[in-house]
Amino acid sequence: MKENIFNDEHFFEEYKKIREKEVNFNNAIEQPAMQKLIPDLNGKKALDLGCGYGYNCIDFINRGVEKVLGIDIAEKMLDVAKSECAHPNIEYRLMSISDISKTDIKEMKFDFVYSSLAFHYVEDFKKLCEDIFYILNNEGVLLFSQESPFITASPKIGGYNRDENGNLISYTFSNYSACGPREENWLDTDYIKYHRTFGKIITDLAQSGFAVKEVCEPMPREEAVKKCPSMAGQFIRPNFLIVKAEKIKKGT
Amino acid sequence: MKENIFNDEHFFEEYKKIREKEVNFNNAIEQPAMQKLIPDLNGKKALDLGCGYGYNCIDFINRGVEKVLGIDIAEKMLDVAKSECAHPNIEYRLMSISDISKTDIKEMKFDFVYSSLAFHYVEDFKKLCEDIFYILNNEGVLLFSQESPFITASPKIGGYNRDENGNLISYTFSNYSACGPREENWLDTDYIKYHRTFGKIITDLAQSGFAVKEVCEPMPREEAVKKCPSMAGQFIRPNFLIVKAEKIKKGT
Repeated sequence: MKENIFNDEHFFEEYKKIREKEVNFNNAIEQPAMQKLIPDLNGKKALDLGCGYGYNCIDFINRGVEKVLGIDIAEKMLDVAKSECAHPNIEYRLMSISDISKTDIKEMKFDFVYSSLAFHYVEDFKKLCEDIFYILNNEGVLLFSQESPFITASPKIGGYNRDENGNLISYTFSNYSACGPREENWLDTDYIKYHRTFGKIITDLAQSGFAVKEVCEPMPREEAVKKCPSMAGQFIRPNFLIVKAEKIKKGT
Repeated sequence: MKENIFNDEHFFEEYKKIREKEVNFNNAIEQPAMQKLIPDLNGKKALDLGCGYGYNCIDFINRGVEKVLGIDIAEKMLDVAKSECAHPNIEYRLMSISDISKTDIKEMKFDFVYSSLAFHYVEDFKKLCEDIFYILNNEGVLLFSQESPFITASPKIGGYNRDENGNLISYTFSNYSACGPREENWLDTDYIKYHRTFGKIITDLAQSGFAVKEVCEPMPREEAVKKCPSMAGQFIRPNFLIVKAEKIKKGT
């Protein structure tokens, strides 16, 4: 049970099926909200933490970025990235997000650090914030999404409740207040993710020097809910938490 | 059903009984966390929004504050404040938090704006943030507590769940994602409070110019839970959200 579940053969195949659906939670909810928050990247240097298939790295190239470094812990996903999303200005590296301060990445400087749905696999969020702050240029932007604390709180206790007609009516959870590891099972695969309260996430960012600019808990549009009715549950409680933060040195 | 429930005779008497308990949610959870976040007030000017009995205004005097203005919409509470917490450097005024920009308060400048458990009665949070930003001196601090969005989301749907032995095991809620008014009944009194998501609270502060420094969802200590076992529910989900933010003008 480690953060490299995306290397698991069974998980990888099942996950691919979800991502290939016409309407899924990523392309209907998380990605549209993330896209809106991406700053002007023209001539900038970007780092994608947990780049997966490399789709976002290519998107950054299309937005005029000068150079992208995409890192991921799952070789299987990087294989897809390298064959489907190759570009002379993109470098893909096999490594863990937790290790950026142990490599030469520590000496590189970026204007934009992006991460889609990977941070809840990282154990030490405060250290991650500090690492990212260190490698960002002044006025650089961090944009990340993660599973909402509503979900990470208690993967094995609670869930949605329905009325006698099968309509979603409420959501039950537990253990919100204790940050730490949670055992999860998704697509028949066991793994560990890390729960953090809203308070810890924002405070860790602030104490690392970031100015938090926007916190978004994105909702699906009506058309998406029609095609995928389970998305109605988002109005009861969101799946995703998105944070945009800026490195601003006081006095500059 | 307005924000001045604290003027309701029955509510006022019942509320007083709660606040007089040796261990209550305010003195065991909310206030200790708020106290820790109060900045150095020596020689400063402070504004207490929803000052109630005036306890915090007196505390600020004891911390060396130069002048305090306490406002509240409930005459009954201000009567207590004026008789029990009078001081030559404290002024108490009967008025709504929503009206600060309509009075001469708009022209005053403060170093510290404090509010304990009042903001969830204010309809327009963005305007409130802008009003407070305007009246704060540069590097001034806003510290407020409010009911957690977990609670404001659906006052009439859900609540704690217990196992067959009566132990608290989880919490159920609904309608988190839609910000807006919620009808509530507390101590046999109906009133309206306003639900806002974590995302909206932090984003409104940031977009009003504040640097959010700390977000705290405070927990009770073990001794308090022993004296008041229902406080164990706080570990499942917190009652309170506390935010500390600073007015920092870029480039200064």
